[in-house]
Amino acid sequence: MSSSVHNNTGPVQLPEERRFLSASEAAALERELLEEYRFGRQQLVELCGHASAVAVTKAFPLPSLSRKQRTVLVVCGPEQNGAVGLACARHLRVFEYQPSIFCPTRSADALHRDLTTQCEKMDIPFLSFLPAEVRLIDDAYGLVVDAVLGPGVRLAEAGGHCARALATLKRLSIPLVSLDVPSGWDAEAGGDAKDAVQPDVLVSLAAPKSCADRFSGRLHFVAGRFVPDDVRRKFGLHLPKYTGTDCVASL
Amino acid sequence: MSSSVHNNTGPVQLPEERRFLSASEAAALERELLEEYRFGRQQLVELCGHASAVAVTKAFPLPSLSRKQRTVLVVCGPEQNGAVGLACARHLRVFEYQPSIFCPTRSADALHRDLTTQCEKMDIPFLSFLPAEVRLIDDAYGLVVDAVLGPGVRLAEAGGHCARALATLKRLSIPLVSLDVPSGWDAEAGGDAKDAVQPDVLVSLAAPKSCADRFSGRLHFVAGRFVPDDVRRKFGLHLPKYTGTDCVASL
Repeated sequence: MSSSVHNNTGPVQLPEERRFLSASEAAALERELLEEYRFGRQQLVELCGHASAVAVTKAFPLPSLSRKQRTVLVVCGPEQNGAVGLACARHLRVFEYQPSIFCPTRSADALHRDLTTQCEKMDIPFLSFLPAEVRLIDDAYGLVVDAVLGPGVRLAEAGGHCARALATLKRLSIPLVSLDVPSGWDAEAGGDAKDAVQPDVLVSLAAPKSCADRFSGRLHFVAGRFVPDDVRRKFGLHLPKYTGTDCVASL
Repeated sequence: MSSSVHNNTGPVQLPEERRFLSASEAAALERELLEEYRFGRQQLVELCGHASAVAVTKAFPLPSLSRKQRTVLVVCGPEQNGAVGLACARHLRVFEYQPSIFCPTRSADALHRDLTTQCEKMDIPFLSFLPAEVRLIDDAYGLVVDAVLGPGVRLAEAGGHCARALATLKRLSIPLVSLDVPSGWDAEAGGDAKDAVQPDVLVSLAAPKSCADRFSGRLHFVAGRFVPDDVRRKFGLHLPKYTGTDCVASL
């Protein structure tokens, strides 16, 4: 028996059990959380940002890192993915990493502005530009968190500043951690191998999007413990169990 | 050298290093987070509710509990303390405890309403009344979380429903976990031994209030990892270090 959810164009038939969501199913799941469950956007961004930072600590444990490797460049786009990046950066600072932030485009959104203020007041440096010479970034940071674009945003729509930042990110040698989807990938079809970033670590938020099937990096986490069981069942999601109080699980 | 903060009646002189905040200092710290750091109330309640649930898992680890002991009655007042209780109950359900909720008074606050919807939709039962016979509660639940009143709210102002709930809670035999302050205690002077609840576990939110000095229960946690270092320094707080990604520390 398959279950169904509704999106703007009518019901979507879902297979009985799977690990991935299409872009429209991911949007429907988020709508369910916001409209039916009355989660707040601030609340979801905080949960996802915290879990993303925890995933970074699991992939790159602090005691295993040199002082230089603890420096993390978090690149935050103007949409919700970038807001999660800002919350992630703050939690990384709390976990004693040394984050810096680069926002290719500043967002006018109030939540973005407040999360930015929190980071600024906690003395997290904001870069005014991203060096075009990738060696400078490779030398200065231990890893990069890619929070540029989420599953709903195509590279072509994101504007030149984001596209230029991604063009730099894909030439880096240091490890890349992508939040939710590798930025610029199609949430379903994935990314063109030549033009797309190829993260070492992927942190799927709420549930993995279809493109995660094409992810070939070292580690894939899902950060969706906050998704209620009934919602997981409704979307036919079959995901690994979270243990103890862990907010992320390894896939 | 002592630092100073301002409250409504002028500067408050603070000792150089201490572990406790007066009621006015606690209010000033929260104002600092909300107004200067631009934290949202939804965000702080989520962080505190999650950390409170983690503290419960540390005090009463799931594997050590029988099925009956995993049932937790969370009593939530109409103010911010109760909102934290609602978020705590949701996280306890996610951590596979069996919470039920009792709200002596329903709150008209939008954040309360949304947190209530989240719990209701996750099938967390809400009790319509609290049995006056304490044996019924002792028999039905493994422990109680007291989220009735926070440090700014005196029992006399809280209304008869909350006072009656507290009168019941203080006669229970099962363990009691109080969030931030034991409900009805004066945030500074503590609680009259005869009339006040005497929790087994205290979870101080952000930082301990002065009355925590008189807490004589088994475990005292502080859940304030989200408080920026500069704010801790400004208030002269000297608190135990959090380890790894832990959101609570034992005092």
